[in-house]
Amino acid sequence: MTNPESVVITDVALRDGLQNHAAVVPTDAKMELVDLLVDAGLKSVEIGSFVHPVLLPQMADAEEIYRRLPEAPGVTFSALVPNLRGAQRAIAAGAKEVHLVLSVSEGHSKSNTNRTVAEGIAETAQAVALLREVGDIKITGSLATAFVCPFDGVVPISQLEMVVGSLVEMGLETVSLADTLGKADPETFERTVETMVATFPETTFELHIHNTYGMGMAHVSAGLRQGVRRFDAALGGIGGCPFAPGAAGNIATEDIAFMLQLMDIETGIDLEKLAVAAEHLRSVMGVPLESSISRALGWVA
Amino acid sequence: MTNPESVVITDVALRDGLQNHAAVVPTDAKMELVDLLVDAGLKSVEIGSFVHPVLLPQMADAEEIYRRLPEAPGVTFSALVPNLRGAQRAIAAGAKEVHLVLSVSEGHSKSNTNRTVAEGIAETAQAVALLREVGDIKITGSLATAFVCPFDGVVPISQLEMVVGSLVEMGLETVSLADTLGKADPETFERTVETMVATFPETTFELHIHNTYGMGMAHVSAGLRQGVRRFDAALGGIGGCPFAPGAAGNIATEDIAFMLQLMDIETGIDLEKLAVAAEHLRSVMGVPLESSISRALGWVA
Repeated sequence: MTNPESVVITDVALRDGLQNHAAVVPTDAKMELVDLLVDAGLKSVEIGSFVHPVLLPQMADAEEIYRRLPEAPGVTFSALVPNLRGAQRAIAAGAKEVHLVLSVSEGHSKSNTNRTVAEGIAETAQAVALLREVGDIKITGSLATAFVCPFDGVVPISQLEMVVGSLVEMGLETVSLADTLGKADPETFERTVETMVATFPETTFELHIHNTYGMGMAHVSAGLRQGVRRFDAALGGIGGCPFAPGAAGNIATEDIAFMLQLMDIETGIDLEKLAVAAEHLRSVMGVPLESSISRALGWVA
Repeated sequence: MTNPESVVITDVALRDGLQNHAAVVPTDAKMELVDLLVDAGLKSVEIGSFVHPVLLPQMADAEEIYRRLPEAPGVTFSALVPNLRGAQRAIAAGAKEVHLVLSVSEGHSKSNTNRTVAEGIAETAQAVALLREVGDIKITGSLATAFVCPFDGVVPISQLEMVVGSLVEMGLETVSLADTLGKADPETFERTVETMVATFPETTFELHIHNTYGMGMAHVSAGLRQGVRRFDAALGGIGGCPFAPGAAGNIATEDIAFMLQLMDIETGIDLEKLAVAAEHLRSVMGVPLESSISRALGWVA
């Protein structure tokens, strides 16, 4: 597989980053970050989650963010949708792209959403049907614990295949595989992606990678070799996982952008402008930067 | 290439880590770290450098360290040797394994050692001849800036091939390739290692990887695929490069040990005991930990 000319990075700092940050960030500061990310060249930004505001008060302003989104031709704004109620809210908010999330492993499904994997699939199918009634909403199936579960350990490929298959049967064209813990070893990760790409050749796969144990860029590299062209990443490498205390968060947008730049793969991202966005994240929003690039390029004094 | 059953990790915290740490660490604290590393299961430890003490006062106690090395059956202690004078000192100190270092790129060679690459090769040949007179010293050729040079940019593979070839002609069986800046992209890195392994099939290659831009584990993964079985790493991910201010240092011993453990590749390293060594490094030696594992596993409170 030769390298692509370009790769799309979805920045998930406003969602996966902030939902793991204890303090609730004011919507004004979030809107400024949206502007700075767009200005830095991001073509895809996940702005929040339609999760119940009691569970994650950090995400309670999803509707308001949608109302205040800037005009940004060529930029896709999306939100996470964890259940049927979230789908209803996304529709009401006028979302044009949603990421319907469900867990691949039973342990995580039960703990995170109090439903079995089968129930998750069934609710996802209902949400898809509801979203389809609107007509012009792009739906991605986002699979948490696609590789390793904090409760069940390494997820069997057959289990992942079953869940991906159910999404494909629902007619979803795009599936995101998440290494929620960042704990897949690079070889297992690559073999799993390879199997999914081979088993579902019509499906577009995206990767959502955490850098908890420092293997994030190895996973990106593996994904590229297997033909993946879309990756989630969070500005500053922020985020984390409630099941991995002290963990680093998502792979950093600046780290993947830097690596792809070295490889002559276009992302549209301007690293100097991204530094401005990162400084906003750090000083205005109060979220410490965790990325390699923020240290290596001296973004933090 | 299938995964190996085992991999040898050489801990270079006492050399590459401490030579980039401003403060001079007392020899007593270094000897305690040697004991803790051996206790944690390391089979190879680089204890310092026979560099001129005026250039690197942090390394001035190399002879004393050799005098005080513990009995440790099955463990190899080694030192860096940058020139002919260093080789004389290594012999006098009774070193059994030395890493003869030279730069692959002209810019780094000139800046780091004030000699051309050709002069570096010539001095290396003299040092090899001198070390051979002793008879039982294992000599590794260690190539700085094998991939990217801070002055010359990406190093042409032909240049690396020329320098490796000269070491092979000297009869060296082991060659270490260093990504001194940590700035090789994973694809170029892998292609380069692949070419070296194919061009010099009788040579054992080792890899010395820095994690400056977060690509360290991607490089390890690439090395494993290309059949490399020996990697340098530094406890705590300490170190850095004088040409990359603010940079993270070497790949961390705990990060590579953790990843290899996930892959069922034996290293002999006990992560819980390594945590004790890391705590010594942090609290007694005063060197901050930079690794992913130290954060993820909560080694730092």
